[in-house]
Amino acid sequence: MCVLVIAVNPCYHRVMKLNKIVCLGFGGSELEDNYWQELDSLVGLHVLVASEAELDKHTDADSLLVKLGAKVSKDLIDKLPNLKYIGMLGTGYGGIDTAYAGSKGITVTNIADYATEGVSEFTFGILIEWCRGVSRALGLAWDGVYEDDDHPGMEIKGKKFGVIGLGNIGRRTAELAQAFGCDVSYWSRTRKQDAESKGIKYQELDDLLANADIITLNLALNAETEGIINGDRLQKIKNDAILINVSPMELIDFDSLVARLKQDDMVFMLDHSDEMTEQQLTALKSFSRCKVYPAIAYLTREAGQLKKRIYVDNIKNFLDGEPTNKVNQ
Amino acid sequence: MCVLVIAVNPCYHRVMKLNKIVCLGFGGSELEDNYWQELDSLVGLHVLVASEAELDKHTDADSLLVKLGAKVSKDLIDKLPNLKYIGMLGTGYGGIDTAYAGSKGITVTNIADYATEGVSEFTFGILIEWCRGVSRALGLAWDGVYEDDDHPGMEIKGKKFGVIGLGNIGRRTAELAQAFGCDVSYWSRTRKQDAESKGIKYQELDDLLANADIITLNLALNAETEGIINGDRLQKIKNDAILINVSPMELIDFDSLVARLKQDDMVFMLDHSDEMTEQQLTALKSFSRCKVYPAIAYLTREAGQLKKRIYVDNIKNFLDGEPTNKVNQ
Repeated sequence: MCVLVIAVNPCYHRVMKLNKIVCLGFGGSELEDNYWQELDSLVGLHVLVASEAELDKHTDADSLLVKLGAKVSKDLIDKLPNLKYIGMLGTGYGGIDTAYAGSKGITVTNIADYATEGVSEFTFGILIEWCRGVSRALGLAWDGVYEDDDHPGMEIKGKKFGVIGLGNIGRRTAELAQAFGCDVSYWSRTRKQDAESKGIKYQELDDLLANADIITLNLALNAETEGIINGDRLQKIKNDAILINVSPMELIDFDSLVARLKQDDMVFMLDHSDEMTEQQLTALKSFSRCKVYPAIAYLTREAGQLKKRIYVDNIKNFLDGEPTNKVNQ
Repeated sequence: MCVLVIAVNPCYHRVMKLNKIVCLGFGGSELEDNYWQELDSLVGLHVLVASEAELDKHTDADSLLVKLGAKVSKDLIDKLPNLKYIGMLGTGYGGIDTAYAGSKGITVTNIADYATEGVSEFTFGILIEWCRGVSRALGLAWDGVYEDDDHPGMEIKGKKFGVIGLGNIGRRTAELAQAFGCDVSYWSRTRKQDAESKGIKYQELDDLLANADIITLNLALNAETEGIINGDRLQKIKNDAILINVSPMELIDFDSLVARLKQDDMVFMLDHSDEMTEQQLTALKSFSRCKVYPAIAYLTREAGQLKKRIYVDNIKNFLDGEPTNKVNQ
């Protein structure tokens, strides 16, 4: 007997429907036309509003899109009685009252894991920039100096590399450090057996800080991690060690960092986080062993595209009843 | 019956003896004191001479140490009738008449494989510098500009990475490219099954040039490879591809390179090789998509120490009758 089986896609129904998205603080250039069209095919209508005051004209909105740094308070949520969905175009969602949103049955999503490669690659870029004086060399060549036998150079291979926080970015940074031939350790609140099975060794935080030649800080900011790199811990870091922070600066006790940098025996590099004051930045810039970068670690074309894709997909998945990147209960 | 076996080191005799090393073109700072002491313990006496003219006072020398770029002609060799050994403090030995030395029974050694990590790491340093604008970002931050949403950024992950020449440095560069998540191909005069078994794919040279997003040139210079990247091949390289040369510039037809760079559609980066003229360097510097670095890819503290260790060990091994890094018959 011959049986012919034809596989077809199962019937497809969106579980929920949305009528109107209000995009708060958007100018329109945040997404390309194809993404706006895709959003409109999902939701029917999108409205761009510059400020919270303009929301009063759109109290019928059932969804709200916001950008990094947005404040979505209880009061704002109460202005939109039909609200079912809040989408953050970014990773951090500290300004959104997620608990209150949750109590009203509103799903809040963010965008996670879009910049893993970008941040990890940037970490090695600024590390090699420091170790090999890449920008100094560019300047020398530009000035016609092509011989530089005294050029400083340190290899990454063979160094003790400590990763603090083993989320997506920390894990990828640890993998790359292993590929460069480092002896890699990590500290994380919870042990990660799969990483350990690949030779990434667990160390207590204080031991990691005391042993590592190169340290990267890859923690999310929360009540437990704020100020986790305190004065005592900063003093444990070895002379000539390199500390790289591509996470919020609030993880580090700032005054203690300045005190340690005054000893001129440790290297510190960061990509600037929004919350830093001009005064703090000026203080850091005065140290020759401190390199401040603008907040560009996560900025790549690939990450930018992935971020927008995830943003729209989050809405699709919410409408399908299978929300992704939901950050509240 | 109980038998006690005690293992002892075999008796140790140096097969040859040397009396006097002449170090041509040396100032003394090329090696630290401990290495000079070690050399003297092996050879008895070392003499530093600045120029070939001074050699006439040391015609009894039985060994000659030279630095990168040294010319050791038939005439110079004939001045030293007792000569048994020529040691090059570097990798390139094109200035030494190795064939004539060989015909006189003189062993010539160089130093290979001391800068594998240094050059491979530097390659990724200047690649990420280009892809992420690291030095531009440092400048922005220095000027107090910390926001830069338009900062250019390209990820390495997912790119087609082509390595031309799979010696030590090419192979390590290919391994690192794999770790960064690239699709890695290589071209080499001979197929390398062990590399292919690790997923580094062979491509014909013209295909590799036409397909790759990022290309590194890791060939030694010889009669077969001089000008191997000719005008036809330069034209095969994709628009927006990045070509990195950490090998001698004579591998590339210079005029054809300038012609391709005039199209402003390809990125070229090199660390300067000694043989380039000021005019050539000036020509390259005029292109915004060309970055010239001084010859620093191989300069690291670790490589510097390893180089000196190998230099002295080469002499030890020669004296033991088991010469290492011998470059002539």
